[in-house]
Amino acid sequence: MSISVISTAQQAQGIDFSGKTAIVIDVLRATSVITTALENGAQEVVPVKTIEEAKSLFATCDTSTTLRGGERNALKIEGFDLGNSPLEYTQERVGGKTVILTTTNGTNAINNVKGADEVVLACFRNAAAVADYIIRRLPRCDSPTDDAVGLSYHGSRDVVIVCAGTEGRFSLDDGLCAGMLIELMKQEAEVETDDLGLLLSRFYNESKNNLLNALSGCYHLKRLFALGFYDDIKFCLQTNCVTAVPLLESRTLHSRIVSLQGSDR
Amino acid sequence: MSISVISTAQQAQGIDFSGKTAIVIDVLRATSVITTALENGAQEVVPVKTIEEAKSLFATCDTSTTLRGGERNALKIEGFDLGNSPLEYTQERVGGKTVILTTTNGTNAINNVKGADEVVLACFRNAAAVADYIIRRLPRCDSPTDDAVGLSYHGSRDVVIVCAGTEGRFSLDDGLCAGMLIELMKQEAEVETDDLGLLLSRFYNESKNNLLNALSGCYHLKRLFALGFYDDIKFCLQTNCVTAVPLLESRTLHSRIVSLQGSDR
Repeated sequence: MSISVISTAQQAQGIDFSGKTAIVIDVLRATSVITTALENGAQEVVPVKTIEEAKSLFATCDTSTTLRGGERNALKIEGFDLGNSPLEYTQERVGGKTVILTTTNGTNAINNVKGADEVVLACFRNAAAVADYIIRRLPRCDSPTDDAVGLSYHGSRDVVIVCAGTEGRFSLDDGLCAGMLIELMKQEAEVETDDLGLLLSRFYNESKNNLLNALSGCYHLKRLFALGFYDDIKFCLQTNCVTAVPLLESRTLHSRIVSLQGSDR
Repeated sequence: MSISVISTAQQAQGIDFSGKTAIVIDVLRATSVITTALENGAQEVVPVKTIEEAKSLFATCDTSTTLRGGERNALKIEGFDLGNSPLEYTQERVGGKTVILTTTNGTNAINNVKGADEVVLACFRNAAAVADYIIRRLPRCDSPTDDAVGLSYHGSRDVVIVCAGTEGRFSLDDGLCAGMLIELMKQEAEVETDDLGLLLSRFYNESKNNLLNALSGCYHLKRLFALGFYDDIKFCLQTNCVTAVPLLESRTLHSRIVSLQGSDR
């Protein structure tokens, strides 16, 4: 399997994703938020680019079962129900609900990879579940066909990891998570990566015992610290604690939450 | 001083470089070639994007003092005088000559940063000379003004390092050289870098005792190895052995070759 890494949402524009699986990462905080929302029972998350788009879409929805979430400049958007802190997306708030979400980087990245055959969302919290989901779709000696294992099987379809980045620049938190995903997949399959993938998997290997320390100089992390989002950062850097694997279906994100041993993925 | 890193020539398009110093790196092999040509006495190197542009320009030049160099698919262009191996650019071949150069990645990167206030070219061979050149222009307690030290002084002008990349993708060799430059500048001045700069300076620090080993998985290096350019790779990974600092002047590259102790830079 070939894995390449794109360093920003902007760089994903103009790239041909057809025939590929795209994994979008925005650790701080969009993909951590979406994973948490789906893990906590949200029916679906609809990522949109602009505040106006979120408002227009909300106006067409059943407002008793729909929430608007997201941020601009890291802060909650006026009039919205939820900000961009994953800690807000509790079972009580989002269980059974549709969440319309707009963020500065993450929802942009998702919208820029819509040409991919499949779009999966990852963060530190669900990295092992995502890696497992991708690896299980690879051909194996004991499961030669789709039908035999009941999978929507795509063989060794190439993977492109899209780091959302921050304000058009590469962000170290997303890169570290990309390195983690590559390392997890390398443990289970023969993986070839591009140069950025090589660098990031090496970075993860050297940093995995202390992610916070490895990210101490990261611009986005320092910015969220300065804004007082310490608990968010701590939460977003927890690894492999949820099994939600958010998948993009048309323009809707919906999770297939099953245990890692589940037969339906 | 602020240093940011751009990972490909393509990414440099559309970025506003005004007010900035751009350092372009294409280790394998354009900036190594240009540095070598200028170190060996070439009068100037003119980087152009296309083969047609090189031919048209050549037709207007004194052909007794002008050479055409460059590559497509890593190989010498038919009818040209020189390929893209720095070992060809000897004093005997290029001394006193103008070299019109077109390469796949490097000359593209140079042309994409022309909006910068200053464009400097770097590779492993002249990294210390380039770092010294940049640092000497910073304000110092004992040289508060331009006039006092005879410098074309720009104070703490921000630096953008542009890695040329390979076929639109980040290339580890360029990244490692960017990390080296940042580390060299950090030794002499207070430097802030973006997240990619942080990652690359860390990579260089961990790799500096064996650059070839650090680059063993690098796509571009493997490709040149396969084509038999082993001596080129060895040459391009030699560090700090020349003092040429190629500077872009209008559309012409010309070097200011002086010793590191020289008072004219």
